[in-house]
This record gives sequence, structure tokens and C-alpha cells, in this order.
Amino acid sequence: VAGPLERLKDRLREIQDLSAVARLLEWDQQVTMPPAGAQHRASQRATVQGLVHELLVSTEIERLLEELRPLEESLEPDSDDACLLRLVRSDVEKETRVPAELRVEMERTASAAREVWVTARVASNFELFRPALEHTFELRRRYVECFDDVEEPYDVLLDDYERATRTTDVRTTFAAVKERVVPLIERVRGREADDDFLRGTFPPEQQEQLARVVIEQFGLRPGAWRLDPTEHPFASSTGFDDVRITTNYNAEDITSFFAVMHEYGHALYEHQLPQHLVRLPTGRYCSLGIHESQSRLWENLVGRSIGFWRVFYPRLQEAFPEQLRDVVIKRFHRAVNRVQPSPIRIHADEVTYPLHVILRFELEQELLAGTIETRALPEVWNERMHEYLGIEIHDVAEGVLQDTHWGSGYVGYFPTYLLGSVMSVQIWAAAMRDLGDLDELVGRGEFTSLREWLGEHVHKHGRKFLPQETLRCATGTTIDPTPYLDYLESKHG
Amino acid sequence: VAGPLERLKDRLREIQDLSAVARLLEWDQQVTMPPAGAQHRASQRATVQGLVHELLVSTEIERLLEELRPLEESLEPDSDDACLLRLVRSDVEKETRVPAELRVEMERTASAAREVWVTARVASNFELFRPALEHTFELRRRYVECFDDVEEPYDVLLDDYERATRTTDVRTTFAAVKERVVPLIERVRGREADDDFLRGTFPPEQQEQLARVVIEQFGLRPGAWRLDPTEHPFASSTGFDDVRITTNYNAEDITSFFAVMHEYGHALYEHQLPQHLVRLPTGRYCSLGIHESQSRLWENLVGRSIGFWRVFYPRLQEAFPEQLRDVVIKRFHRAVNRVQPSPIRIHADEVTYPLHVILRFELEQELLAGTIETRALPEVWNERMHEYLGIEIHDVAEGVLQDTHWGSGYVGYFPTYLLGSVMSVQIWAAAMRDLGDLDELVGRGEFTSLREWLGEHVHKHGRKFLPQETLRCATGTTIDPTPYLDYLESKHG
Repeated sequence: VAGPLERLKDRLREIQDLSAVARLLEWDQQVTMPPAGAQHRASQRATVQGLVHELLVSTEIERLLEELRPLEESLEPDSDDACLLRLVRSDVEKETRVPAELRVEMERTASAAREVWVTARVASNFELFRPALEHTFELRRRYVECFDDVEEPYDVLLDDYERATRTTDVRTTFAAVKERVVPLIERVRGREADDDFLRGTFPPEQQEQLARVVIEQFGLRPGAWRLDPTEHPFASSTGFDDVRITTNYNAEDITSFFAVMHEYGHALYEHQLPQHLVRLPTGRYCSLGIHESQSRLWENLVGRSIGFWRVFYPRLQEAFPEQLRDVVIKRFHRAVNRVQPSPIRIHADEVTYPLHVILRFELEQELLAGTIETRALPEVWNERMHEYLGIEIHDVAEGVLQDTHWGSGYVGYFPTYLLGSVMSVQIWAAAMRDLGDLDELVGRGEFTSLREWLGEHVHKHGRKFLPQETLRCATGTTIDPTPYLDYLESKHG
Repeated sequence: VAGPLERLKDRLREIQDLSAVARLLEWDQQVTMPPAGAQHRASQRATVQGLVHELLVSTEIERLLEELRPLEESLEPDSDDACLLRLVRSDVEKETRVPAELRVEMERTASAAREVWVTARVASNFELFRPALEHTFELRRRYVECFDDVEEPYDVLLDDYERATRTTDVRTTFAAVKERVVPLIERVRGREADDDFLRGTFPPEQQEQLARVVIEQFGLRPGAWRLDPTEHPFASSTGFDDVRITTNYNAEDITSFFAVMHEYGHALYEHQLPQHLVRLPTGRYCSLGIHESQSRLWENLVGRSIGFWRVFYPRLQEAFPEQLRDVVIKRFHRAVNRVQPSPIRIHADEVTYPLHVILRFELEQELLAGTIETRALPEVWNERMHEYLGIEIHDVAEGVLQDTHWGSGYVGYFPTYLLGSVMSVQIWAAAMRDLGDLDELVGRGEFTSLREWLGEHVHKHGRKFLPQETLRCATGTTIDPTPYLDYLESKHG
């Protein structure tokens, strides 16, 4: 008969399998599912989420955790099993507070609301989406109420994506970013544009071929990933050695191509999670912030560097000769690094990007507190976009309806994008200390050592430690916006 | 508080959701999953199957069923709820006999063995597959041992796919088929062939376009289905209004196109299952035999009729002018109905097809009994193919390795193909009695009345009744091979 630790792990493996299945249900819904299947899919997702909940808060797991207390105290605190027990205790403690019905309804609503969002966005009609949005926030308020020992309500939501991270600390980090980014935007605003060649005709077929070339050269295990077109780019791991990148090829704008490098960063993280912890909660990614640090690192620090384009620009020119034949690499590189306030977050340049995130971070807190009514949201959105970036929004599809997150039930998720951007530069600097001139390596098309360094210093820890502990493992410090801001200023200032 | 019937239904809906998820896991594995994901996928499928088992045999359901006995006795026996309770009692009774570990191992082995089968088939190497095959049959023997009240072991396996059907009855039906089909093959053998034009160049892109035209004209609800290429054609319902057809386009042989009509028949059945029973076990398909009666009906009685080609042949000629410009419709129609013994079951003509099934039905019983060793299987296969169809097999990929079934753990499944073929003609005759000249309707491209008749007389019953009861609802009688054999003889004799 298996001992209590093995019995616990068996249950946890089942729960992890169900979570992977939940990710497949979501990937499939966005990539392959016939649209009419949405209603039944919502039930399926709710059922799976309900079972995850039921299994996690079972008396069986409770008893096993109790039984394992003496063992836990005898273990090295950083050992795999100690980390596992600590993590599971915390997950169970949290999940126990949430009634099963609420968990199921959150999932069902998320799945259904996403379809409503798709329709509303296509129709550029916020009112179509508003009831679903209201319901989403109402459910989040009920969720927050399950936790009575937090400094502020938003902490609860944030914790789902970035464990043990306080809203007040995020606010401090974001304030520091805003303080130096706003003047930086002012300084570069009005610089002459020379990037018309980025808009034109870029057939998706060629973009896809190139995307595969980039992914293969960056490196993922063969036969263990796929790439599909979708409305909103994302990467998802639906199993070990089964990582799925999606992207959106804009046939008229080649800058959409950067999403490929971004999603590659996510995929690589999933690909290099610790194999010996597969199907255990410690074998998953640490947090969305750490995840995003990986995607932003590949998108910006690699993908927008001159070295990267030294390797890939000839192939890009070859794929789109009419567009790029007469554009020399330096001009191209300058164009894809141009700072220019624009309405869509996922197409934003590195410098204006933080303000897109900060806007959503603020609005989520206000919507949660009820200090903004959903009815007023498009107007508030547009006003703040004007205030922060000086631009006018004329279409809700390019404003408040642009992101899938709220429709998919992800509230508290956005801040991790900026936390990740900040951490990406800290991690890049740490890798530089070990590997020397990374720009030079990238410029030779040599990605193996960077990939392996990230595997060794970030990915291999999985979810054993808290996000800030993981960052400390990789860089020696916790989050610090200074390197990020120095980088932005030195590159764009 | 919900009453016991509603509580039972809630649990059953969860189980049905998990089963739909299991179908998605399988569809995804065959259509979209990166190959390296197979190992983890096997765990996921085993976990889901294990949970289905665990939920079904729970004391909760046992107690609810007990509590509901008085209600059940008061209900009309054919009412939705009476059928549901009867069905669930039988499903639970059966599942209770199977240890959870065995259920999980069967599923895990199936998922892993399928990948082994793919490799072995590509390599034309039976020995690669043999250990997995042996393990599959070993598990089936353990499964059979869970049931001690059957006439013969194979009954247990058959019951999984065709409820309450005895091996001895199948044997009788198949003997009657063999008795008239063998001489029929003798009579037509040696007729001069005129079908070279079916082999040549048929680009998959055009085949796919045509497949979509055919499916749309036959009729499925828009936005509620998809069509994908795969190694082995199949259709799967991964949710209500989410039906997925797969097929294999042979670029050198247009007869592969008939798989589309075949899979359409399966898809239509799933599409017309009773909506008010969605997510309940009574809302699923009745049996694989009834399922196959639908696919064979659309493939053969519609798809190989002259009327069908009067509608579609001009489009086929247009798609493949080099191949078919000079071939008149009658000649084409004769060619696609040519009787010619051949090695591959799914490409077999209507007349030789039954012998492919009978071969597998016999071998499965012998493998289960251990009277054939797996080592000897390719040789026995080849001998019998020679004996039944007079052909030589030179490559295991065209012999014993051709089908995915045993690799996927489906033992006892094959007979339903022939049962379905037999029933398809009975159902066609019944539809004729109500609708008049079906060939004439088909020849006008009018498929709505047939589709609706099938919905009303076959599909709407879902899984409320046993297969033979369902057949009786549709045709007034139980299975009878005479109409089928009359049809084969009058068409081909």
C-alpha cells in the first residue's frame, strides 16, 4: 500500500490532469471549436472546474495533509516535497473558502461571456457585452468576500495570478514606472516617423512560415508544440511536451509578427518546466508575472534587438520583397522600435505599453469597488487614454473591448504584464552577468545558452517558490523597476 | 432543495460532460495534438475515465437510485425519466463490477497503444505493435472476468458497443450473410474492370472543397460542425452543436471520398440527438450498430446511388477535369460500385465488406480465448484473407495493422459495422414506405425529408431504448439480414 505522500501525489496528479484538460477546453474553444458549441462547452468547463474544486477541498486531502505534518517538518524547506506540501496547504486553504457553486458559476460565466465578448467586439457594441461584464465583476465581488483577512479587496484577485503580492506594492512599482515613463514619452513624442513600410501587404502564409523558422531557431523540442492562428494570441500548455502557440497574423501590418516571439517566450517556459515534477502543482509555472517576464524577454530584449534582425531580416526581406527590398536593416530596426501612442495594448511599443497596463489596473480596482459604473466604462476608458497617451478612441473595439480578459473572467491578471516587463530586464541583466554579451550571441543566431540559462535559473523551479522568491533565485533580488526604466531610457531616450 | 431525480440528473450531467471531454481528448490526439504529447495525454485520458468510473459507482448515485425506485415504478415505461432510470441502473450495475484500477489501466493502455500502433503501421512492423496488442487482450480478459453471468466471454465486450446483443445471435446473422455473399462474390469475380480513371491525381484541396459542398447540401446546422484530415476517418461529437468529421483524402484514389458521406451519416445522427436530453445518458446515441446504420445509409444507399451522382458528378468532373472529363456518369457510377476483393476494409466495396468484418469478429473471439497466439496473427490474417477473398497480403500495414481499433482498445467493436450495414437497408426500406421513391428525391438533391425522417424515427430516441428496440421503433422489426442481402444481390448480382 502506498504511503500518505504517494496517495496525496496521486490525487494531485489527477487534479493537475483535469487542469490540463481545462486548458485544452479553452484552447480548443479559441482555436478549433465550432462556434455553436459554446453553450455546451461552458457546461463542460464548469464541470471540470467544479471537480477540481471538489477534489482539492476533499476530506481525503485534508486528512492526508494532517497526517503528513510531521514528515513536512522533518524535510529540508527547499526540497521538492517540502515545497509541494507547503504549496498544497496554501492552495487548499484558499480553495476551501470558496463555495463550490461560486467556483462553478465563475467558470460557466467566463466561458459564456467570452463568446458574448467576441460578438460584441465584432459589432463594436459595448452594450452587448455590458451585462456579462457586470456579472463577471459581481461574481468577483462575491469571490473577494470569501476572504476576510486581506488588506484590500484587489489583493484577493491578484493572488490568483501572482501569489503573495500585495496591491499596495504593485501600486508603488507602477508609480515608479509612471514617473519616468510619462516624461520619456513626452521627450520622444513628435519625433519624425519613418515606418510606412511596416504597413502594406504581408500575406499570412508567409508570416506563418517565418514564424515557424523563428520558433525553430529559438528552439523548442520537435514534435512537442504547434502554432495556430487565433483572434487573440496566447500560448498554452495542454500537457507535458504539448505546448500550443497561437498568434494573429495581420495581413496589413508586419508588427503583429512580434506576438510570435512573445508567445514563444511563454511556450519555452512551459517547455522547460521540471520534468520530474510533471503532473504535480510544483511542476507548473510560478506565476503569470514570471511567465510574462519570459515572453517580454523574447519579444523585446531579443526580438527588438538589432542582433536578432541581423539574423532574421534577410529572411523577412525575402518573404516580403515588395515591402522591404529597399529598406535597410537599421531603418527597419528603428521603425519597429518607434515609440508612438496607439490604442491597442498588444501592439503597443515598449515605452507606452506600461500605461496601457496601468489603466486597466486602475479600472479593475474601481469596477470592483463600484466607484465606476460599467455603463460609464467606455467613456472613462477613452478619457484616460487621452490623459495618459494623448490619443482619441473612436471605436470600442479599439478601446474597452479590445482585450479578452474580462470576458474570460480574468480580473487581476493585467498587472502581471507590467510586473513581467519589469522583471524581464532584471532577468536579462542576470543572464548577461553569467553569459557575457547576450546581444552578440543573439546576433550570431546563438540562442541555446540563453535558453539553457533561463531553464536553469528560472524555469526549473516550477512553482516550488513564491514569485518574488523565484525572481531572487534567478537575479539575487526581488522586483526593482530601476533596471527596466534605465533600459527604456537608454534605448529610447 | 432539488429532489432526488434532479440531484441524480445533475450528477449524470457531470458524467456526460466528462465523457464529452474524453471524446475531445481523443479527437485532439488524432487531429491536433503534437505527437510528443502522447504520454501525458494517456494520463489525462486515464484520469478522466477514472473519474467517470468513480462518479458513476459512487454511493451517492447508489442511494439516489434506491430512493427513486417508487417513482420509477409509477412512471410510464417509455417516458424519458423511466428510460433514464432503467439505463442508469444498468450502466451502474455494469460499471460497479469493474475495479477502478482496471478501468484506468484500460484507458491508459489504449491511449499509449494507439501511438505504438501508428508507429508500427508506418514501419509495417507487426512485432513493434505485438506487446501492446497482447496487453490490450490481456486487459480485456480481466475485464470479461468481472462478469460471471454471460453465455460466452465475447458477450461482455459486445455489450459495451451493442447493448444486450448476444454473440450467438450475431453469429447467426453473420452466417446468413456469408451464405449468400460468398456465392455472390464468386458470380461477380472476373467481370471486366473499367475503373482506371478512379486512380490518378486528385489533389486533397479540391477533395476537401467538394467534401464541404456535399456535407452542406446533405445538411448540418451551420457553425456546429468541422471537417479535418486525419489518418483514420471518424466522426465525434465533442458537445451538443459541436460535431467533428475527419477524413483521409487519398490524393491518388478518389474512392477515398466515400468516407466523407460515411462520416456525414455519423455526424447527422449526433446532430439530431434529442436536444431536451442533452447531457443525460439517454440523450446519447443508442449503439454503435445503430450509428453505423446511419453512416452506411449515407455512404452506400445515398452516396453510391446513380441519383446522388446525377447531382454531384458534374461538380466532381469540374474539380478533376483531367481525370474525369471523358468519363460519362454511368461509367463512373459502375466503377464506384465495382465489386473487387481488396485488402483494406474501409476501402472495400459493399459486397466484400461483410467478409472483412466477419474475419475480425472471428479473430477477436479467438484472441480472447487464446486459441490464436498474437505471434501467429499476421499469418492467420493473411491465410483467411486468401480463403475468404482470394487475395494475398504482402504488407502488414495492409493486413492486420490496417485498423486503429485494437490499438485504441476497441475489442468487440467490429461486428457493429456489419450489424449496421444490415440495419441500414431495413431503415432505408422503412423510410421508403413513408417517403416514397427515395432515389428520385436524392436525384433531385432533396435531402431534407430523409434527414427529418431519420431524425423522427431513429435519432430522436437517443439512448432511451435498447438497439433492437430502437430498430423496431424505426422499422417495425428487429434485425433481419434478408433485405440487405436482397439489396446486394439485386444491385450487384
